[in-house]
Amino acid sequence: MPPFGREARKGVIMNRPKGKALVAQSGGPTAVINASACGVIQAALAHGDAFTGVYGALNGILGVLQEQLMDLEREDPAQIDRLKRTPSAALGSCRHKLRSLDKDRRDYERILEVFRAHDIRYFFYIGGNDSMDTAAKLGRLAREVDYEMVAIGVPKTIDNDLAYTDHCPGYGSVAKFNAAAVMEAGLDTEALSTHDTCTVHEVMGRNAGWIAAATGLARRDEDDAPHIILLPEVPFVIDTFVWQVKDCLARRQRCFVVCGEGVKTPEGQYLGQAGGDFAKDAFGHSQLGGAGEAVRALIESRVGVKARTNRAGTAQRNAMHFASRTDVEEAYRVGRSAVEAALAGVNGMMVTLERHPGGAYRCGTGLVELETVANGEKKLPPEFIGPDGVSVTDAFRDYAGPLILGEADLEIAPDGLPVYARLGKHLVARRTTGSYNVR
Amino acid sequence: MPPFGREARKGVIMNRPKGKALVAQSGGPTAVINASACGVIQAALAHGDAFTGVYGALNGILGVLQEQLMDLEREDPAQIDRLKRTPSAALGSCRHKLRSLDKDRRDYERILEVFRAHDIRYFFYIGGNDSMDTAAKLGRLAREVDYEMVAIGVPKTIDNDLAYTDHCPGYGSVAKFNAAAVMEAGLDTEALSTHDTCTVHEVMGRNAGWIAAATGLARRDEDDAPHIILLPEVPFVIDTFVWQVKDCLARRQRCFVVCGEGVKTPEGQYLGQAGGDFAKDAFGHSQLGGAGEAVRALIESRVGVKARTNRAGTAQRNAMHFASRTDVEEAYRVGRSAVEAALAGVNGMMVTLERHPGGAYRCGTGLVELETVANGEKKLPPEFIGPDGVSVTDAFRDYAGPLILGEADLEIAPDGLPVYARLGKHLVARRTTGSYNVR
Repeated sequence: MPPFGREARKGVIMNRPKGKALVAQSGGPTAVINASACGVIQAALAHGDAFTGVYGALNGILGVLQEQLMDLEREDPAQIDRLKRTPSAALGSCRHKLRSLDKDRRDYERILEVFRAHDIRYFFYIGGNDSMDTAAKLGRLAREVDYEMVAIGVPKTIDNDLAYTDHCPGYGSVAKFNAAAVMEAGLDTEALSTHDTCTVHEVMGRNAGWIAAATGLARRDEDDAPHIILLPEVPFVIDTFVWQVKDCLARRQRCFVVCGEGVKTPEGQYLGQAGGDFAKDAFGHSQLGGAGEAVRALIESRVGVKARTNRAGTAQRNAMHFASRTDVEEAYRVGRSAVEAALAGVNGMMVTLERHPGGAYRCGTGLVELETVANGEKKLPPEFIGPDGVSVTDAFRDYAGPLILGEADLEIAPDGLPVYARLGKHLVARRTTGSYNVR
Repeated sequence: MPPFGREARKGVIMNRPKGKALVAQSGGPTAVINASACGVIQAALAHGDAFTGVYGALNGILGVLQEQLMDLEREDPAQIDRLKRTPSAALGSCRHKLRSLDKDRRDYERILEVFRAHDIRYFFYIGGNDSMDTAAKLGRLAREVDYEMVAIGVPKTIDNDLAYTDHCPGYGSVAKFNAAAVMEAGLDTEALSTHDTCTVHEVMGRNAGWIAAATGLARRDEDDAPHIILLPEVPFVIDTFVWQVKDCLARRQRCFVVCGEGVKTPEGQYLGQAGGDFAKDAFGHSQLGGAGEAVRALIESRVGVKARTNRAGTAQRNAMHFASRTDVEEAYRVGRSAVEAALAGVNGMMVTLERHPGGAYRCGTGLVELETVANGEKKLPPEFIGPDGVSVTDAFRDYAGPLILGEADLEIAPDGLPVYARLGKHLVARRTTGSYNVR
């Protein structure tokens, strides 16, 4: 862990308050968000002098609003350690979005009420843009009302769309799994090309094509899958796509398409929801089932060959059974760094991953203000997208390649399946009266 | 390898002809059909005295019909060995179904013409029911026209629906991957239950529920996913299902459903194609995208909670990155056994897997006549299905549990992704004149 240097000085360095630490997980689970939680929890427990307790919020910010807090000191340390190798969000997560602080302070005030009731002075929030926004606003309100607290953000998102960090924990693992799945399913399409000539493999990534692009790492050879990568950053033009599929079929007698779930028409409509040619398959039915199904139907109706759809769905973001060791280690490290930053007097910042310049991949941690990161969104830059709009460049390979390196530790039970942590989730007694109505 | 005893005596024991061996792969790829091919090829190459050459058919029986044969002796032995760890069908496969021999002998006569032209006297056919049927008929015609040849079947199907064998190579691996994926995605549903309350995970298995049932192995605890397993063997009754989902939600505030792609209505229609309530989601759209999408839409419209769909598609049957070591080893062994059987004078039979009775799992090989196996289809027996119709019994766990044990060897390249075999596919010169029109 490098010391918090230049970046930390930008943050609000303060005298450290004494009180409890709270960790919460937010948004869509990943293979490694628990590794980050483990980093926070283990670092906090190791500093019993600095924290009067270590709590977890059940189901993210919802658990704070509903005062469902867990005492993590009562958990079995072995289960806490196992979080490093456990996918999904073991504390529970949610997609509850707080309203704008300017418009409605109620939720924020409720959070501070709960914090105050339990003397929570450190809030470690693991999440994406929205979570950093929440943490920033909470910090602002706390300063207004003179409640001394420290808020530190820990980045997490498979989408890899957080700005101000080289990449996001969670991305390397979803990238590795999808690249392997595309490599494997690509061999299937090759073997059965006389029958199932095309395959459309839909991957997550609503607004940015980072995950779709990562499947390009599977393409070691020109003829390997994926042959066409549809990115949300590149508007989907039917005639261009149909031409590209036909060209691929002429060259290889098969075509493997990766489709980001957030691919849009030139008019800005998601493929899975668009009307017109997308909405009708060869039989005139409306299409549901997402972008991949729309593209499949289009291939069958406009190219006239059989196509299949793969969509691992939520399984892809939790594929700990083939996760990136690099990703797990970095996720753990940003969790620990968040606590170390707090102990160093940092407040109102998110830990970032900073790639060292130069040849071999090395990555340290840094800090960025929560307010800053909250408003950024990082799309795939043009230099990562091939000139044909459906492939990735060597620059992208240089960027993403190191993030999928190494295989995460996996504990296999005698039954042949992974062993994942189960927390006791020991709820602490409520200290506020009445119930809070979450909207 | 146990000797070919009682079963072999049922086969046609003959003087062994001298000539080339041909291996072909058929139907949907699996994680281990290449391991079987490797077993055949390595055993045949090791008996250079018995075979005048070892050929492979490009794209299965299509390659025979079109006289696209590969000389496997020209392949790099390291690539051949790597087939043990390579998913999909490296020789190429197809879904070409030959017509009935009684109605149309043309395809069969063409196959014998190609065999005769290349002096192919041993045909090792790796596939399912249809392939065994083809091999049986070919053998029958060969006897009629006095062409001395040996046909041996090697079982393969992820569906596990071949009769007369304890289980099929390919099943253990698709079972292991799907069980792990359900375990992992199940944790996702648990973590996000306040938002994405239900998940429908569709798995392959058109006519039999073996794969869907195998995900039940992930349910170590009553509250673990999957909570509801929809099997093709159990007619899908809407009201019963809706009640089961609601009951699960009342108990666990979440519901994880596994849905076999071949689940049917009481009227015998596939869910993905059925009309009525299945065909309309909450917005009145028709449903495409398979059984899983139909069930998802039904949950949203009838239960009123958000549901998601996962469908790994072809990725599931090629998931070598988390395949069963037991499956790989058995697949390799049935391949070798096929050659050993041929060398022992067996003809017209398929190698089977025979589980030894008693406690610890042990499995040997046996033989069954091709004609017999061709007409059998093995569905999930009632004693493997729980009384609620949507779970599996301990008897099923005892049956399927050992098949997913151990992790297959995986070779990882410096780029962090698996290394899979690539064959040179050296085509041999054609010896028949004119082109054959495959229908």
